[in-house]
Amino acid sequence: MIELLTPSDYRKMRWKNGAGYTLELARSVGEDLAEFDWRISMADVTTSGAFSPFHGMQRILTVLEGEGLALQVDGKSHTLRSLQSLPFSGASAVSCELLAGPIRDFNLIYQPERYAARYQWIVSHQTSEFLSSADILFIFNSSSEVLDIRIEGELFQLEQQHSLYLHAHQNVKHLLFPSSILRQCCLIELTKI
Amino acid sequence: MIELLTPSDYRKMRWKNGAGYTLELARSVGEDLAEFDWRISMADVTTSGAFSPFHGMQRILTVLEGEGLALQVDGKSHTLRSLQSLPFSGASAVSCELLAGPIRDFNLIYQPERYAARYQWIVSHQTSEFLSSADILFIFNSSSEVLDIRIEGELFQLEQQHSLYLHAHQNVKHLLFPSSILRQCCLIELTKI
Repeated sequence: MIELLTPSDYRKMRWKNGAGYTLELARSVGEDLAEFDWRISMADVTTSGAFSPFHGMQRILTVLEGEGLALQVDGKSHTLRSLQSLPFSGASAVSCELLAGPIRDFNLIYQPERYAARYQWIVSHQTSEFLSSADILFIFNSSSEVLDIRIEGELFQLEQQHSLYLHAHQNVKHLLFPSSILRQCCLIELTKI
Repeated sequence: MIELLTPSDYRKMRWKNGAGYTLELARSVGEDLAEFDWRISMADVTTSGAFSPFHGMQRILTVLEGEGLALQVDGKSHTLRSLQSLPFSGASAVSCELLAGPIRDFNLIYQPERYAARYQWIVSHQTSEFLSSADILFIFNSSSEVLDIRIEGELFQLEQQHSLYLHAHQNVKHLLFPSSILRQCCLIELTKI
């Protein structure tokens, strides 16, 4: 099953700590803020402060827009600039400082006991193809260029901020990104373990 | 655990149908030809003929060297040239015709009930990086250029025909291919389901 998601499909939700909003792109079943197997989201960070904990979860965060973040994760410092990613435990004590003004981040949060994850930002004009039997494939186009994707030969075209959400169980799927002017997208693959 | 494999680590084995040899690069535990959860191998195909069946298994085959193959898979024709891949069931009736002289193929055979697979040939000079929590990561360098790979920041260098075999359970790993003159490698990720 393949779903093309547009920004009108994304859901705006208040953070667990109340200090901001998350735009939820997709998630496993359920409505509860804290109860899900996986969730893909974006958030605008406008002030420095602490992150909400997600105990038992694994997180991967990427700076999507803006200058960047200085993250303190369990006392260790990490500087993240545009399209740089960091994996960390949802149980970690995390606080962030804005490097210079607001940023937008992109997030995968998942249950590492239930899912294996593969997470990649692709910035390229070259053709790229692969085979995957992941249960879930999620592709988010952050570029203003239309993103072309061929899945088993069928062409899909994603406008900026649109996503393709493919849930197919265990079949090997062929994905092809044809050569393009500029491709900038996030490719997430989740496999139930 | 990370192992650097060289051609002296690969094992030459006669085909199940006796008509040729396989060079086995890596496999799950066991010595039996037909009993494994996954196997990565190369084979020289010097004559046209039928493939050995692998019931219950999923196969992915790539033409590595030579002009190419015409494969008949359950009566359907597929032409594979250099670095073109085809997934098919190990239970399928498969026969091949050489397009023009011998070829070398590269194979993943796995139990789709036990493993999810991701299979990609990367031909690029650009930097590429991703995060993966796959149980097994296998990288084979088919280029005469040395392949540089950074795993969690540590640099590994693969000569031609060498492989990197990483088995790490469920931890998120950061892999980076720095920019290079030419990278031509196969990246296989296997996750126990």
